[in-house]
Amino acid sequence: MITLAVDCMGGDHGPGVTFPACRQFLSTHPDARLLLVGLPEAFVNWQTHERAEVVHALEVVTMDDPVEVALRRKKNSSMRVAIQQVKDGKAQAAVSAGNTGALMAVSRYLLKTMDGIDRPAIASQLPNDQGGATTVLDLGANVDCQPEHLLQFAVMGSALVTSLDAHNAEPSVGLLNIGEEAIKGSEVIKRTGELLRQAGDSNAIRFVGNVEGNDIFKGRVDIVVCDGFVGNVALKASEGVASMIVGGLKTEFKRNIFTKFAAILAYPVLKALMSRMDHRRYNGAALLGLRGLVFKSHGSADATGYEHALNRAYDAARNNLLDRVQGRIAQAATLLVAADSTSTGGATAA
Amino acid sequence: MITLAVDCMGGDHGPGVTFPACRQFLSTHPDARLLLVGLPEAFVNWQTHERAEVVHALEVVTMDDPVEVALRRKKNSSMRVAIQQVKDGKAQAAVSAGNTGALMAVSRYLLKTMDGIDRPAIASQLPNDQGGATTVLDLGANVDCQPEHLLQFAVMGSALVTSLDAHNAEPSVGLLNIGEEAIKGSEVIKRTGELLRQAGDSNAIRFVGNVEGNDIFKGRVDIVVCDGFVGNVALKASEGVASMIVGGLKTEFKRNIFTKFAAILAYPVLKALMSRMDHRRYNGAALLGLRGLVFKSHGSADATGYEHALNRAYDAARNNLLDRVQGRIAQAATLLVAADSTSTGGATAA
Repeated sequence: MITLAVDCMGGDHGPGVTFPACRQFLSTHPDARLLLVGLPEAFVNWQTHERAEVVHALEVVTMDDPVEVALRRKKNSSMRVAIQQVKDGKAQAAVSAGNTGALMAVSRYLLKTMDGIDRPAIASQLPNDQGGATTVLDLGANVDCQPEHLLQFAVMGSALVTSLDAHNAEPSVGLLNIGEEAIKGSEVIKRTGELLRQAGDSNAIRFVGNVEGNDIFKGRVDIVVCDGFVGNVALKASEGVASMIVGGLKTEFKRNIFTKFAAILAYPVLKALMSRMDHRRYNGAALLGLRGLVFKSHGSADATGYEHALNRAYDAARNNLLDRVQGRIAQAATLLVAADSTSTGGATAA
Repeated sequence: MITLAVDCMGGDHGPGVTFPACRQFLSTHPDARLLLVGLPEAFVNWQTHERAEVVHALEVVTMDDPVEVALRRKKNSSMRVAIQQVKDGKAQAAVSAGNTGALMAVSRYLLKTMDGIDRPAIASQLPNDQGGATTVLDLGANVDCQPEHLLQFAVMGSALVTSLDAHNAEPSVGLLNIGEEAIKGSEVIKRTGELLRQAGDSNAIRFVGNVEGNDIFKGRVDIVVCDGFVGNVALKASEGVASMIVGGLKTEFKRNIFTKFAAILAYPVLKALMSRMDHRRYNGAALLGLRGLVFKSHGSADATGYEHALNRAYDAARNNLLDRVQGRIAQAATLLVAADSTSTGGATAA
């Protein structure tokens, strides 16, 4: 039996989205239980379910709340109570659509960082040309990264992919750069390439070299590693292009009576395309590197999207993502220690 | 009369693309002259034109040539001879589709950097939701940037936009970041935000604050400033998404006889969309910060795309881009000097 703790209040829509998603999730996962965390008044609309238990919280972290408010002032928030269930061993994973900064801070504060990990990272999947998904991390938790942090991301990302995709025991890793040649990029990126190559040689990861921004969507590798600044910009720029194209399609099809007629005939095709690219299928980012599993849904997710985030958390819990990360980090430990001492030496010398 | 020097050999296609583009450009610009630079044997297919003069070169910089080869070994390359025309005052701007690294290095070596500019940058335009274009820089010339470099980019980008768009005397500038709040981002980005705000207060630029990756395509600002690593990744990720969606559309429309029929009816709509997003219309990146104008065409551009790069170089030359950059840099000089001494101080203290 897998138990997930759900922050039912988080996100733009709260229980209006989380309740139907939870009910649907329960119906497709007969061996799952949910702890539904929310304000008491939210549950007037919840019809009891034998595998769902209600846990009360007293307040809600809003999408605009600064990290400090979530951490120090709202100690009984639905977000925090959900993560507390994981810490107390009552749930194997927590899911929230609440604000990312607060979720990372509260998770880090309550669950603590894993041995061998300096900085937790946010990993998500993006659709690719191969009909599959490319896992990208970090997506915004860490703006300034050193090579050893990026190696940790590579290791954690590898563990994540193996736990979500049973057929991929040795996922490939690419380093996001501005050219495929090893001599390209900033100093940090060049040293990271060196370190990832060593990690590849010692079989801690399967490193295939540098990749460029477009390779994320070509699906050349399973995992793309980058710092959180670059990852966040790449993710949002991609969302921007996609919504510009979709917006352009809508405008052009609405232009006149003929184009509207064409739209009716093209509808099944456009629907199939949208379903291929449907970002809801990729909803559910993993907060990696903590001593407990936390998944983040997009704040604006609908019930279908939120259900995917629940599925992802369930798969990760079922396939022991935590143990996989810990095991792989242990395997890469010598490299990480060596890198750490090198970089400390470098900093002192500078 | 505006004279452009054209590296006819550069790019994936060479004269097969550059010749028809040049001829078309000449027909639409009666006050323009071209200096066509290429190997003697390339001109057997060129029909003379009264406003085109042939200049011979002895060799060609290939797309894979390392910078050193272009700089030190191929001293009579078509790329270099074209730039030499600008240095010698025989042309107001050079255009090449040759490899970016070599073009930047040779341009910098021959033309030198402008007073007040530490590092030249590459600026290009991307289509946005407003039906206009957003100018983004740097796109890959500078991987590690300090705040004063990013301020220089903001100033040069502002000069570029005013020279390409007569109706936009005070273009707005946004700093690419991972959130709109001023407290977001790396240390360099936070200090850059501070500096750009000062530049805005002294009217050197019109700074509107932080923007995110998706804002490039929303068209919230005229100019987006970022370091070359982030800019390059954002650009390529965007190209990756666009080509995945277009590929997906093609696949879905080819699926069966019904979808093929739908494709025929939807064709005008799809064509209108493609033309809105047509990257060829945005071809022609400016190398800014040099004592001469150089424009870079995509290596894979077709004749229509290459013609757009010629148009852009023509507009920049006609509207005195060089003087505009110089003037704006002079205006921002006090800020740049102040920033420079601060950052040197910071580096010493570290």
